[in-house]
Amino acid sequence: MLLSALRDAVPLVQCITNAVVTNVTANVLLALGATPAMVDIPGEARQFAPVASAVLVNLGTPTGSQREAMLEAADAANESGTPWVLDPVAVGFLAVRTQTATELVALRPAIIRGNASEIIALAGAGAGGRGVDSLDEPAAALDAARLLASRHGSVVAVSGAVDMIVAPSGAVVGVANGTPLLTQVTGGGCALGAVMAAFAALTEDPLLAAVAATGVYTIAAEHAAAVASGPGTFAAQFLDALSAITPDDVRRGLTLRSDS
Amino acid sequence: MLLSALRDAVPLVQCITNAVVTNVTANVLLALGATPAMVDIPGEARQFAPVASAVLVNLGTPTGSQREAMLEAADAANESGTPWVLDPVAVGFLAVRTQTATELVALRPAIIRGNASEIIALAGAGAGGRGVDSLDEPAAALDAARLLASRHGSVVAVSGAVDMIVAPSGAVVGVANGTPLLTQVTGGGCALGAVMAAFAALTEDPLLAAVAATGVYTIAAEHAAAVASGPGTFAAQFLDALSAITPDDVRRGLTLRSDS
Amino acid sequence: MLLSALRDAVPLVQCITNAVVTNVTANVLLALGATPAMVDIPGEARQFAPVASAVLVNLGTPTGSQREAMLEAADAANESGTPWVLDPVAVGFLAVRTQTATELVALRPAIIRGNASEIIALAGAGAGGRGVDSLDEPAAALDAARLLASRHGSVVAVSGAVDMIVAPSGAVVGVANGTPLLTQVTGGGCALGAVMAAFAALTEDPLLAAVAATGVYTIAAEHAAAVASGPGTFAAQFLDALSAITPDDVRRGLTLRSDS
Repeated sequence: MLLSALRDAVPLVQCITNAVVTNVTANVLLALGATPAMVDIPGEARQFAPVASAVLVNLGTPTGSQREAMLEAADAANESGTPWVLDPVAVGFLAVRTQTATELVALRPAIIRGNASEIIALAGAGAGGRGVDSLDEPAAALDAARLLASRHGSVVAVSGAVDMIVAPSGAVVGVANGTPLLTQVTGGGCALGAVMAAFAALTEDPLLAAVAATGVYTIAAEHAAAVASGPGTFAAQFLDALSAITPDDVRRGLTLRSDS
Repeated sequence: MLLSALRDAVPLVQCITNAVVTNVTANVLLALGATPAMVDIPGEARQFAPVASAVLVNLGTPTGSQREAMLEAADAANESGTPWVLDPVAVGFLAVRTQTATELVALRPAIIRGNASEIIALAGAGAGGRGVDSLDEPAAALDAARLLASRHGSVVAVSGAVDMIVAPSGAVVGVANGTPLLTQVTGGGCALGAVMAAFAALTEDPLLAAVAATGVYTIAAEHAAAVASGPGTFAAQFLDALSAITPDDVRRGLTLRSDS
Repeated sequence: MLLSALRDAVPLVQCITNAVVTNVTANVLLALGATPAMVDIPGEARQFAPVASAVLVNLGTPTGSQREAMLEAADAANESGTPWVLDPVAVGFLAVRTQTATELVALRPAIIRGNASEIIALAGAGAGGRGVDSLDEPAAALDAARLLASRHGSVVAVSGAVDMIVAPSGAVVGVANGTPLLTQVTGGGCALGAVMAAFAALTEDPLLAAVAATGVYTIAAEHAAAVASGPGTFAAQFLDALSAITPDDVRRGLTLRSDS
């Protein structure tokens, strides 16, 4: 099971991510059993990607320095065979990040993770979102995800009530776990991208990595929601649940939907 | 009641804020029912302010890139009629931010929020503070607040044991709710600025917005303090309380003081 | 006892630290009874160090702007006699920060704090670490710590299962308190550097400051671990424990080892 493999391997995940979720992303990786490394400055980003197990590139608050580091890291990851994940936060309307996202996606990330608006925007199929909250139903983003997946050879994961994960072949896996509380705390989506990167370090199959990451993450979230009294206690309980979740929990809890 | 209106409208609050409180500010807005958008880079800040419901400009850790984005956002907000809030963290002694604050306040924010030292410093009435903790009593800042309010046409909110909110006319409303725990966690003041922005999106009356924001925020803090065992559990419980607070809680709990 | 002195003096700790731990570092200082001030931009960093009680320089995510601010602050701190702490996060392999660390250590910080890999790398005695998690046993870093301590006249603190604190004379104090949970949350090491700075403001003896900081911090962590159910609840309980810990708790709980 990939979760056991992760805890044995302790993958080192280089994160170039946004200012809002840097802390929660690192804590999610630590709780799960991976090691975060927030190496996001020019010069070091290129140097680190080949020694990292995987790389996360998240466009949430892309300073000029970070944008340069993102392109460095993606390029160096490709050269060294390090898998990397792109999270195109709020692309579409916002010009600066959308330009960077266009350059990044052309570098063929192993996995692209976003909400429906973001995936539609990145595929050029829509006008983009108003931020990190999706206004489109995930189902409506399936066409855009398939287009992106086949164009770039990437697995594309679309967050929503049912998370849809699309292979370059067009095959789709749905994961129907989770809790609305994940949308009421920062990092609910962004940290999942980091977890996908951690799992991508463990297998040659990015579809499997994205599905396993989504399953582990959303089932842990269900455990936390069961004992939380609101979003603040949920955030703390979620880290506890990620630390405690077992392969058996995932096997028992996972609700897959392969139809769509 | 404005709290119900907020939850119906889900205002989109653009935050250009400091590195310490970015996460808690976003979580406070999410818990309350608003949507945060940390769009704080040049180019995007100007582009986003007209589509945002309100803008927060907080000077806590003002990088060069952020200072440029702040002026962009304030200018674009004014052109599009988007209300914006200025939080002049630690202005006075520190030269770089004080220069930026001077430029920003001349752009006439709807609301200026700070502690007594900051308000006195911004009004030119004092030598400034040593950081985000106030050494002056709020009452002593009333003159400075009235000066600022009438000079710039802004509502000025001065944090303290009793929060004093001053209209351009010179009218003052005091809110005597809250808990000392708000001063023992990061973001206790800064996130209130974001909540004021969220409420300013809902009414043409920034005095009402600032008073409603202060009431909801400090009463939720009282609820959290009642069940917390220290600052760490308070921070988690505070998000739960913001998520759970009702208009009735506010009506019952609000302690106004209109004398001063 | 230094803990009582800290709560009486409320030292003002200027922190130039990394994006991952900015929030937790400020919260740890607040919980303990100090005042954090994240003044980390060029111009202001130099201006603030002489009025701060102590300065923390942490190299975790060193942007160009921060690197300039770090050198400013260290220089101004030396001129004004303000004690400062250097935390050389992940130096060794990563070129940019290692260059900055070399310049900083030559400015003779009062205290250098790191894990074994970092201390070895900074002393030029090893090839560096893979991030903030140490691959070397603290004992193996003792030679490197002694070399650094005597070369720069700094106290050198090496984190590990037993924290080893080395004086310029070569004397070593071990603190055998703590919990593995400190390595499973962000800031477990980084925030300790800030606490060392806070204590360094209270005494002319940086060895005493580093030992007192380590004792208070790791004993509070033990208290939190006793009531936590995982890393998320631990992080919240740790702030509560720092706020509640008494000099008596430290006297009763401290486990020193002066052999080595």
